[in-house]
Amino acid sequence: MPVYNAPTKDMAFVLHEVLKTQDLSIEGYEDLSADFTSQVLDEAGKLARDVFQPVNASGDQEGCTLENGVIRTPAGFKEAFNKYREGGWNGLDCDPEYGGQGMPYVLHTAIGEIFCAANMALTMYPGLTHGAYSAIHAHGTDAQKATYLPKMVDLEWSGTMNLTEPHCGTDLGLMRTKAEPVSDGSYKISGQKIFISAGDNDMTDNVIHLVLAKIPGGPDGVKGISLFIVPKFIVNDDGSLGARNGVSVGNIEEKMGIHGNATCVMNYDEATGYLLGTEHKGMRAMFTMMNEARLGVGMQGLAQAEAAYQNAVNYAKDRLQGRDVTGTKNPDGPADPLTVHPDIRRMLMNQKSFIEGSRAFTLWGAMMIDSAHKDDAAEGLISLLTPVLKGFNTDIGYDMTVQAQQVFGGHGYIEEHGMSQFTRDARIAMIYEGANGVQALDLVGRKMPKDGGKHVMAFFDMIKTFASENKGDETYENDFLNPLKEASKDLQSVMMYFMQAGMKNPNDALAGSSDALHMFGHVCLGLMWAQMAKAANDALAAGTDDPQFYENKLITGRYYMQRWLPTTKSHMARAMSGSTNVMGLDAEAF
Amino acid sequence: MPVYNAPTKDMAFVLHEVLKTQDLSIEGYEDLSADFTSQVLDEAGKLARDVFQPVNASGDQEGCTLENGVIRTPAGFKEAFNKYREGGWNGLDCDPEYGGQGMPYVLHTAIGEIFCAANMALTMYPGLTHGAYSAIHAHGTDAQKATYLPKMVDLEWSGTMNLTEPHCGTDLGLMRTKAEPVSDGSYKISGQKIFISAGDNDMTDNVIHLVLAKIPGGPDGVKGISLFIVPKFIVNDDGSLGARNGVSVGNIEEKMGIHGNATCVMNYDEATGYLLGTEHKGMRAMFTMMNEARLGVGMQGLAQAEAAYQNAVNYAKDRLQGRDVTGTKNPDGPADPLTVHPDIRRMLMNQKSFIEGSRAFTLWGAMMIDSAHKDDAAEGLISLLTPVLKGFNTDIGYDMTVQAQQVFGGHGYIEEHGMSQFTRDARIAMIYEGANGVQALDLVGRKMPKDGGKHVMAFFDMIKTFASENKGDETYENDFLNPLKEASKDLQSVMMYFMQAGMKNPNDALAGSSDALHMFGHVCLGLMWAQMAKAANDALAAGTDDPQFYENKLITGRYYMQRWLPTTKSHMARAMSGSTNVMGLDAEAF
Repeated sequence: MPVYNAPTKDMAFVLHEVLKTQDLSIEGYEDLSADFTSQVLDEAGKLARDVFQPVNASGDQEGCTLENGVIRTPAGFKEAFNKYREGGWNGLDCDPEYGGQGMPYVLHTAIGEIFCAANMALTMYPGLTHGAYSAIHAHGTDAQKATYLPKMVDLEWSGTMNLTEPHCGTDLGLMRTKAEPVSDGSYKISGQKIFISAGDNDMTDNVIHLVLAKIPGGPDGVKGISLFIVPKFIVNDDGSLGARNGVSVGNIEEKMGIHGNATCVMNYDEATGYLLGTEHKGMRAMFTMMNEARLGVGMQGLAQAEAAYQNAVNYAKDRLQGRDVTGTKNPDGPADPLTVHPDIRRMLMNQKSFIEGSRAFTLWGAMMIDSAHKDDAAEGLISLLTPVLKGFNTDIGYDMTVQAQQVFGGHGYIEEHGMSQFTRDARIAMIYEGANGVQALDLVGRKMPKDGGKHVMAFFDMIKTFASENKGDETYENDFLNPLKEASKDLQSVMMYFMQAGMKNPNDALAGSSDALHMFGHVCLGLMWAQMAKAANDALAAGTDDPQFYENKLITGRYYMQRWLPTTKSHMARAMSGSTNVMGLDAEAF
Repeated sequence: MPVYNAPTKDMAFVLHEVLKTQDLSIEGYEDLSADFTSQVLDEAGKLARDVFQPVNASGDQEGCTLENGVIRTPAGFKEAFNKYREGGWNGLDCDPEYGGQGMPYVLHTAIGEIFCAANMALTMYPGLTHGAYSAIHAHGTDAQKATYLPKMVDLEWSGTMNLTEPHCGTDLGLMRTKAEPVSDGSYKISGQKIFISAGDNDMTDNVIHLVLAKIPGGPDGVKGISLFIVPKFIVNDDGSLGARNGVSVGNIEEKMGIHGNATCVMNYDEATGYLLGTEHKGMRAMFTMMNEARLGVGMQGLAQAEAAYQNAVNYAKDRLQGRDVTGTKNPDGPADPLTVHPDIRRMLMNQKSFIEGSRAFTLWGAMMIDSAHKDDAAEGLISLLTPVLKGFNTDIGYDMTVQAQQVFGGHGYIEEHGMSQFTRDARIAMIYEGANGVQALDLVGRKMPKDGGKHVMAFFDMIKTFASENKGDETYENDFLNPLKEASKDLQSVMMYFMQAGMKNPNDALAGSSDALHMFGHVCLGLMWAQMAKAANDALAAGTDDPQFYENKLITGRYYMQRWLPTTKSHMARAMSGSTNVMGLDAEAF
């Protein structure tokens, strides 16, 4: 059976020694002392290990069922959910006015990784609730906030996001769900939504659906979409639950993974809905949640990679097979452990160096979200990096779960060891919240050219500044700064090519969009490793009780720079090869 | 529901216009006229489409069951198996002396791709039987051949290969299964084998297990392993079935995929076994089957990629979502088809160009197996390329099933469309028949240095010769020969580095073994595309009824050269970065 132990020491290293959150003048960060966050992370780690993780594999096996319109989550989910609820974990970064603890989003993200690594399907129920909370918090009236938020913060009620319909996912302008105005100011919502994660459950008393729909007579396409609050049970004026609303679960999908999460077809049949925000501005309201939601999905890729990696490490240490070609390491045993084999090491180092880099990247992104409302530069940068955080972390995170599975050989393919579940669960993160091709389109088509390319230039300047401020140590320059500068230069060449070629033919840029997104991701992780190596060098220079911890950071970082970062070369060659090779074939010739 | 149509035109193109099998003086190839093979491929295609494919998804869903020691295969498998049997497909390349049709292995490989693409789990039952047939054919006594082969060729009986035990897969020297000699010349086999594909079934009257076991008193390690025939039912002297042997199914594994194939724990309890080949030379006997078996698994990677690709293409053509940024292509519809989007095209072209290259590579490999017994150069080359055929085709084949799934967006994640099954089924091919890391070790540690590097040098010479013999057309040189020569040069640099650095520290070579295997695969596919492009140019120059077919080959080939081949650059940088970055961390630091 798989295990999971939260990597709290690595998280604390990133927060306090790399990002130095406690020293930053960001609201709420003054409370992030090393002692405090370590305690929070440790508590989350215990709950994740002892309560969430033990029902992960069983939840996968059992899945959710729909009987007479009622969803049943797997055995043990409700108990685990209640412990999470009682611990107040859902309200960690929520507004104290509605019962939250007002902590920063960066801490929510760190504990999010922990719970998601332990049980992704279960963590999605509070995760979606948190997203719906954020939307109502940002766009709701005072009365709406007072009615819904305290119960959602407390997880007495859960929330969902309803966007996709059978014939449209990415292209929401094709949406058919209708919202007919009623004289009392409410709307009657009718239509079908599909792929609704955590669409219903048997753990909360009410489910607050946020539903995109069109008010008849509004503008065509995405400009005529509005957002509605549609509770499963109508909430009476005194806050008690009233009549069942006209919303029901039509079906639950059989999926490749996240079996413990009920992915529902939702049928709305003149359900009572309440406008959230402004008429026809529903897409804008959803988009304000986008950075957060996409960073959260990117974090899922990282979390599944971490969980898979931990188990691959355990197996590689325990399993005796073959001998070290440079001399046996276990002469008294029948064979050496798998860790002596360079190709096994390669896979473990791939995972480890990606995961630690990705964690720093994700927490850095969360930090920018925390400061974005007061800092335009942070807002611009996180907006640029959001598609990278989502696309890169989930693409590579998935690949890393596949490599972790590969370490197990045949034992990775049978369900008994749980390695298959990590890959099956991680797979969805490349798809939902905007498939990764859509992230690449967003990066190249919108975020890079945004504000005249100001934000992407600021990103490159930041790297240049970091490199010039930290030069002087030849080893550090060779190991970290030079490869980073080289990769950054490659990425800049691609951007220049996109700007020039894309002016004549936008497809020349779009055909390279996924390659550019991956290059961007590697440059970001290269920057993170340069920063982590600097922090490690600083700690070693200052003297430390645990020099090995910091030496290992340097070793892992060098692996990333030498074995991951050169990937930018191939991406660059592809991205700059134009679109003729991609678009040359007649569509009917496929 | 997914569909499958055999790509017989592409197969015929490779066989007759690229490899020109009909013109080669290889035994059996004189019969491979274009008319004949096309007819065979078409017939296989119909059976695959109409009979195998319709029970693929249902077989995945239902899986195999074990009740009271009896395996039940999914509904419809027996009927499909019987049609395959009645069509004589299993004996296509078998020895006519035992009821086979004596056709070449290359044709068996082509039809193998067709059936495997339609239903991998089902095709594995005859596939394993074929492997066991080959082992008995190569190493059995005349009496053994007469007893077992006719019924195995006919599929009245099936076969299995029993290697793995709970504590050893790759490292078979640790094997514990025992074979005690009995006075009548037979042996009593006792022990447990795991991960036995097609371990038992309800479709054949007998199962002929080939079992590796140790005769007490023999040499330690792999040098003391012998191979035995252990039939499920003892065969009487008159060929009728006698007593049930002491072999039973202990369990069937719950797996990520290939649910329709019964992966069994096999228990041997003093089962009667008959020595196959020479005492203690069992590994050698298994290894003579290795090229064929590994090429066959590589073909599975290709086959799943092809099946997934066909469905991704259909979806991309049908699904309307978004608009072509360069101008709408479907003005009367609510949106344009997915095929207008460059990133969707990128994924489809990735798949198409890999699949067609991989098919040529695989059939070329099969051709070398056909000629290997009379041609030392072919024997040397196929031995070198076998780990590449297995490792590269299954790694990239798997990735392509993931990309095909990605084309579907959320619809790729639900089981309804069948895209999840292609990835789940394809995943095993990276693991069994030697995990891909073991293939890389075989390539770099054994095959490349074999005979003083003679075969790898011959490979590079072949590319050089091909390039110099076909120069003169500037477009062709720029599009195909130059990128091929460049990639080949990169691979040679890596080989040189391995020879030099590996002398001092073998880990410097082994740490780059997977990268070298992938480079090798890309160079092989580059060569295949250069050959296919030449054949296309020749056909166009000679005049053809279907110029578009050949033009499309050139377009697809250029995509491969421009967008796949540059991958060698990153692999080269990694492979030549030594082993310090891979092995630097203390094993306990993971």
